[in-house]
Amino acid sequence: MFYHVKELQYHAKPERPDPIFATQLQEVLGGQFGEISVAMQYLFQGWSVRGDGKYRDLLMDTGTEELAHIEMLATMIARLLDGAPVGDLETAAKNPIIGAILGGMNPQHAIVSGLGAMPADSVGNRWTADYIIASGNLLADFRANLNAESQGRLQVCRLYEMTNDRGVKDMLSWLIARDTMHQNQWIAAIRELESKENVVVPSTFPKSLEKREVAYTLFNYSQGNASAEGPWAHGMAPDGEGVFNYVEYPAPFGDVPKLNPAPPNIFNTPPAVLNANTETIPPNLC
Amino acid sequence: MFYHVKELQYHAKPERPDPIFATQLQEVLGGQFGEISVAMQYLFQGWSVRGDGKYRDLLMDTGTEELAHIEMLATMIARLLDGAPVGDLETAAKNPIIGAILGGMNPQHAIVSGLGAMPADSVGNRWTADYIIASGNLLADFRANLNAESQGRLQVCRLYEMTNDRGVKDMLSWLIARDTMHQNQWIAAIRELESKENVVVPSTFPKSLEKREVAYTLFNYSQGNASAEGPWAHGMAPDGEGVFNYVEYPAPFGDVPKLNPAPPNIFNTPPAVLNANTETIPPNLC
Amino acid sequence: MFYHVKELQYHAKPERPDPIFATQLQEVLGGQFGEISVAMQYLFQGWSVRGDGKYRDLLMDTGTEELAHIEMLATMIARLLDGAPVGDLETAAKNPIIGAILGGMNPQHAIVSGLGAMPADSVGNRWTADYIIASGNLLADFRANLNAESQGRLQVCRLYEMTNDRGVKDMLSWLIARDTMHQNQWIAAIRELESKENVVVPSTFPKSLEKREVAYTLFNYSQGNASAEGPWAHGMAPDGEGVFNYVEYPAPFGDVPKLNPAPPNIFNTPPAVLNANTETIPPNLC
Amino acid sequence: MFYHVKELQYHAKPERPDPIFATQLQEVLGGQFGEISVAMQYLFQGWSVRGDGKYRDLLMDTGTEELAHIEMLATMIARLLDGAPVGDLETAAKNPIIGAILGGMNPQHAIVSGLGAMPADSVGNRWTADYIIASGNLLADFRANLNAESQGRLQVCRLYEMTNDRGVKDMLSWLIARDTMHQNQWIAAIRELESKENVVVPSTFPKSLEKREVAYTLFNYSQGNASAEGPWAHGMAPDGEGVFNYVEYPAPFGDVPKLNPAPPNIFNTPPAVLNANTETIPPNLC
Amino acid sequence: MFYHVKELQYHAKPERPDPIFATQLQEVLGGQFGEISVAMQYLFQGWSVRGDGKYRDLLMDTGTEELAHIEMLATMIARLLDGAPVGDLETAAKNPIIGAILGGMNPQHAIVSGLGAMPADSVGNRWTADYIIASGNLLADFRANLNAESQGRLQVCRLYEMTNDRGVKDMLSWLIARDTMHQNQWIAAIRELESKENVVVPSTFPKSLEKREVAYTLFNYSQGNASAEGPWAHGMAPDGEGVFNYVEYPAPFGDVPKLNPAPPNIFNTPPAVLNANTETIPPNLC
Amino acid sequence: MFYHVKELQYHAKPERPDPIFATQLQEVLGGQFGEISVAMQYLFQGWSVRGDGKYRDLLMDTGTEELAHIEMLATMIARLLDGAPVGDLETAAKNPIIGAILGGMNPQHAIVSGLGAMPADSVGNRWTADYIIASGNLLADFRANLNAESQGRLQVCRLYEMTNDRGVKDMLSWLIARDTMHQNQWIAAIRELESKENVVVPSTFPKSLEKREVAYTLFNYSQGNASAEGPWAHGMAPDGEGVFNYVEYPAPFGDVPKLNPAPPNIFNTPPAVLNANTETIPPNLC
Repeated sequence: MFYHVKELQYHAKPERPDPIFATQLQEVLGGQFGEISVAMQYLFQGWSVRGDGKYRDLLMDTGTEELAHIEMLATMIARLLDGAPVGDLETAAKNPIIGAILGGMNPQHAIVSGLGAMPADSVGNRWTADYIIASGNLLADFRANLNAESQGRLQVCRLYEMTNDRGVKDMLSWLIARDTMHQNQWIAAIRELESKENVVVPSTFPKSLEKREVAYTLFNYSQGNASAEGPWAHGMAPDGEGVFNYVEYPAPFGDVPKLNPAPPNIFNTPPAVLNANTETIPPNLC
Repeated sequence: MFYHVKELQYHAKPERPDPIFATQLQEVLGGQFGEISVAMQYLFQGWSVRGDGKYRDLLMDTGTEELAHIEMLATMIARLLDGAPVGDLETAAKNPIIGAILGGMNPQHAIVSGLGAMPADSVGNRWTADYIIASGNLLADFRANLNAESQGRLQVCRLYEMTNDRGVKDMLSWLIARDTMHQNQWIAAIRELESKENVVVPSTFPKSLEKREVAYTLFNYSQGNASAEGPWAHGMAPDGEGVFNYVEYPAPFGDVPKLNPAPPNIFNTPPAVLNANTETIPPNLC
Repeated sequence: MFYHVKELQYHAKPERPDPIFATQLQEVLGGQFGEISVAMQYLFQGWSVRGDGKYRDLLMDTGTEELAHIEMLATMIARLLDGAPVGDLETAAKNPIIGAILGGMNPQHAIVSGLGAMPADSVGNRWTADYIIASGNLLADFRANLNAESQGRLQVCRLYEMTNDRGVKDMLSWLIARDTMHQNQWIAAIRELESKENVVVPSTFPKSLEKREVAYTLFNYSQGNASAEGPWAHGMAPDGEGVFNYVEYPAPFGDVPKLNPAPPNIFNTPPAVLNANTETIPPNLC
Repeated sequence: MFYHVKELQYHAKPERPDPIFATQLQEVLGGQFGEISVAMQYLFQGWSVRGDGKYRDLLMDTGTEELAHIEMLATMIARLLDGAPVGDLETAAKNPIIGAILGGMNPQHAIVSGLGAMPADSVGNRWTADYIIASGNLLADFRANLNAESQGRLQVCRLYEMTNDRGVKDMLSWLIARDTMHQNQWIAAIRELESKENVVVPSTFPKSLEKREVAYTLFNYSQGNASAEGPWAHGMAPDGEGVFNYVEYPAPFGDVPKLNPAPPNIFNTPPAVLNANTETIPPNLC
Repeated sequence: MFYHVKELQYHAKPERPDPIFATQLQEVLGGQFGEISVAMQYLFQGWSVRGDGKYRDLLMDTGTEELAHIEMLATMIARLLDGAPVGDLETAAKNPIIGAILGGMNPQHAIVSGLGAMPADSVGNRWTADYIIASGNLLADFRANLNAESQGRLQVCRLYEMTNDRGVKDMLSWLIARDTMHQNQWIAAIRELESKENVVVPSTFPKSLEKREVAYTLFNYSQGNASAEGPWAHGMAPDGEGVFNYVEYPAPFGDVPKLNPAPPNIFNTPPAVLNANTETIPPNLC
Repeated sequence: MFYHVKELQYHAKPERPDPIFATQLQEVLGGQFGEISVAMQYLFQGWSVRGDGKYRDLLMDTGTEELAHIEMLATMIARLLDGAPVGDLETAAKNPIIGAILGGMNPQHAIVSGLGAMPADSVGNRWTADYIIASGNLLADFRANLNAESQGRLQVCRLYEMTNDRGVKDMLSWLIARDTMHQNQWIAAIRELESKENVVVPSTFPKSLEKREVAYTLFNYSQGNASAEGPWAHGMAPDGEGVFNYVEYPAPFGDVPKLNPAPPNIFNTPPAVLNANTETIPPNLC
């Protein structure tokens, strides 16, 4: 169960309105790696932990914090939209600044949300749960989390460079630091799980049931063999259970596939038509 | 540029048709972590590498291999659908097996694809590029790749346990082994990049510009402090640049947000109505 | 900012596992009118309120409660999935119960979420922010909220009738009661706003700027005039500013539209081809 | 069955082309509350009415009218796009007006639709049936309809203020008036149903089966108690069957959830790993 | 503008309820090639015709007819859902027929639409305007229409074979016949436009501006040269302006791409890290 | 199985960066008829061919070529994005060119993809498999392919006119020529199949089972009879098995639909409320 307090986790006050930056900032609120994604991802992972203890607690701690980040970004975006001018071509023609705003702002901020933040990304795609993952396997999921924090911090850093507003930069510097923490945190948790389980997910599938002969092989399916120079092509593999090898000219292991005909009630192209390889029909006959 | 050879990378022949398992197997073809996702993710990452060398080559190698995995799964699914019975309630009533098939198979396999595989997951959601990521930052993206291979291997292992068909299990044991390789490979690549760049993405953002005072802090936003017991709560952080600390009762750093009123041309609730906190209207007046 | 406590708002314990019902119950967790929708809708509305006071507070109260409902449903679904059997056609053939489960359960509960709840509806569509609304106009939005609670309670009542599990029914009776409260609450809030603003949203658009002559007219565009019998076809309109009237045979007010040709650089069908109404080409010429 | 006449319901002629406004106007054609949404929503509701009479007739009347509104908007948008200039950065650099158009117009109007209207919103999201609702319960659905007309009129009013084109404003004043009618109409219909059924949807679920003790309670989950001042916190509730009460410090009614472990064939994190709360592994071990 | 009459274009009465077939039949109502798709596609094409005359008229005729088909299918589906039993695992365990229904029916038909048809396909994906096309070029669009009617008739024929209900079969035989007409009709219209414009769309782009040397070449990018046997590999091309030729071993015409480094404010992998091809880091260093 | 070579199929080098055109060009990479769509469509069709021979080979040839087109466009877009300036309103205010770029470029090119191409269209919608079709019936599918190449060439021609960059134009002239080939190729293949099967898809459904009396009828559902003038309204139909006829005033063939009431456990509007056509309630009673 949750409780809400009115204060923000950190300040969210721009120096001045800027509807173009409001649009851009939506990315880290409602985009693929925005705060809605991490909040929902951590909470769903937490609720699915089939046991108690520190991992569930850590997920709930962090997921609950991300709710506060959604709130900070929603507040900041509303303030960046303060008094956003709107208009048509005639308006744009008179004032190049307004022309730029009309081009660069999300028109839904005026028409749909009434100058409020939206659960959408910087091009207006609405947030979707396609973005998140909770698999029940924590090592897999903590890797998803580390990725999310890596992509997220990267995007916030890019946004930091795109604005000159000191109030915005101040808030972004908070989010960047929190993402530093969260990357470090998931790395620490991943290391702990890897040390308990080994690095390959899932660790409990019997190795004897996989095709071991290709479990450490780099197949060179693309021309050039620069990839042979990497640490993934020779030496002991990170799981400590095999040695990498490199196949420069990989050949197929399987056959040419040949499918059975479909039954007539499916109304596919009839086999007689399909397999007539000889050309018996004049090509320009209509 | 690409070339195609007719042989499959590995065999894809079930012992017998099974439209229920065909439906389930769609998950690792067209689902969030199916083969379409990894093929497209690695190729888009490869095409975006702004430099040549082993990382681009590795991405193209692996992305091209994943195209072959799509092909193997598409072939296997078509064969599992061979002669799939279809029917209505009357048919189901006569035969419990057909009833089970009608329930467990994807009706689009009969109606839409004509007993062919679909670019969709196990519940029929069509594949979407929402699933993939290519950010231009390889450390971030290799973490996305390691996550994709972890989730993918996990799903294939689960599917391996859900079938008794030796032909299917044989093919899945190939895919599981390749995912073992790919997890090892991305781990090796991540370690190399981390050793060159440090572990926090992006490594080139000046640390002085982030709020360092909260860059190593675990805020305990959820009741209970089991999370204080983990390696993410004390000791040196994995980036080697800070020491974790734990805040058991975190207080807000920001203020209560107060937004300015919207201009009249937005037609939001007028400020006079919005802020009248005293209740002056009988509640049952319509 | 938010805090989380470990206890659930209310019990979420089924008598026994039931993966079919787990699938159905997903509707009110991650469907169009599920708990994710109301939580996100109320919170986004709350964060966009451009003023302080009771409306914002009410939205934050209720939105925060809905987060607890997501949690209860996620917990209940995980428990309904306890030990869910999975399998293929061979398994189904041996046991009609398992056949029914294979048909009626969401295969992603086994393959993707590892027996955890998903942010998806009862047919597996992932939750999308397309479902929610926050417009900045509270009267409009409270109507959206009343609709959401009406659809939501309706769906929970239907689910209540679909199960015999007393533990599930106990939890649903809680949710149904809360939806009773929330419908009453939004009705009370709507009445207050309507009494301050009038019933037509937005209340601040000047009436003189709309075509008043058709602002109270029911046009009978469908055969039969049963619709003339309703309270919407005669008498004073609810806004008290017009009298309903009924037009049995509505004629168009506009002209036949005729569009200008497109410029050549758009490569549409050329005007010469498009507008040649006389048929000059033998129909069977290929 | 439907018939089409060539004349528009009302005029749809702008004074001059304006591709920026064409883009913005798409919102009320193909957006969440655009004319496609209301047409499809009313028609699907009408087709699902399990009985004849005035409600079905009213839905078919209004749904059929909304088809005419789609047509008017499609015509208006095509005309606003007449001769839209298109170009690249070089073109934009030479002429600030064209620069503004390139920014503010939807490029798909040139590339995809050939200067025609699209079934999409103002940021290019294609229309989806996620937007509509037809539940079989008319009181619930009429509330959905009232919300749709409220949001729709709000959006059209905002667009009215964003243009100076008298032809566009003339058409919008028609749509605004029709939305006035439709809001009044659904309010009248809602009142009739509420008077027959009571205000809580569904009215036929036995009250004794819900947890009556929390059916009229406002839980104060967010700090501050401004919400206690509203008509939803005390006095008789609108359904006339209970008295609102306010709980300032709500405690949980449920327990801390504890989930059973998953079976091994699901390959989640093993219980031994999951529940080891003591930290036995050096955090920097890789 | 549209008018609606109450009678259906054709009968839509099943012999008996069948919720499984109702689910399957949704495909041709709300699927990719269902009646919503063709109705919306033809109407949007019609509204975008920039000229008057027979093509626009034909589109409006056919689009308006498709609205009647949506109505027939919505009616049929509602009737197939009459009294659909719903339940949980306990119910399924007692009765294999109900088990089959629970598996094969769409749970949203009970929970969401209250036994009404939904704007969705046979697996529950909601209809999306991603399915339709209106480009302003009628030859292109009539090809889209011919495809839609081909896919649509194919799906209806498959459904015809999946049911034994004479009432359903009667209605489907109507839809199949109408699709026969619509295929013939679009073929006739395509032939007329092709005879006026030539077969390559768009016909007005100057041939001199395309790379003529590869405009009639079949590149054999896949192993084997069975494709050389077809009428597309030799002889005069259908456009009468070139002769097909076949390249058995196609070589690239372009260079190896090499992208410039990104600027530092994008925070991609730094060039120094990216292009270090020599492996200088021990692979197992963490 | 696939192999990749490093060279592009054709050159992809612009004269200069242009982030606005990069955004527009995304349409033919990741839009509805972009190169991802045709690659995936042809490959899925090829993998589903239930027989060997020239059709499967042709599909694999062309699908594999389209992978190379994705690569060319991804490379071109990355180069058009070289050094793209980014910024906020303050930046835009100082420089109208940058203002135009901020409006016309996709902000995700900076924030999300790090100046790389995205699997998305020109307004930022991510690619979805909703765009593609593979039905198992090749005549149907080749029509889908001809449509895709027609829409695709149309879009590339429009883009050709929107840029002055000679490098971009050079690459587009290649793609336009390849689309000329592909249109010709699918026409040739369609003609061959039509001559073997007849023109109506599917050709194997018994004609006696469709309602022949309406299989060649044009119903005039829209006012005006310009459509009677076309080759689709009289004369022998293209399938050679019927004569077109025209019905100027089409009447319904079906009855007024009347649905049975829903059972009580569905909680729809009760029949007593639904069918009370007499108005017994004062309209203003709340």
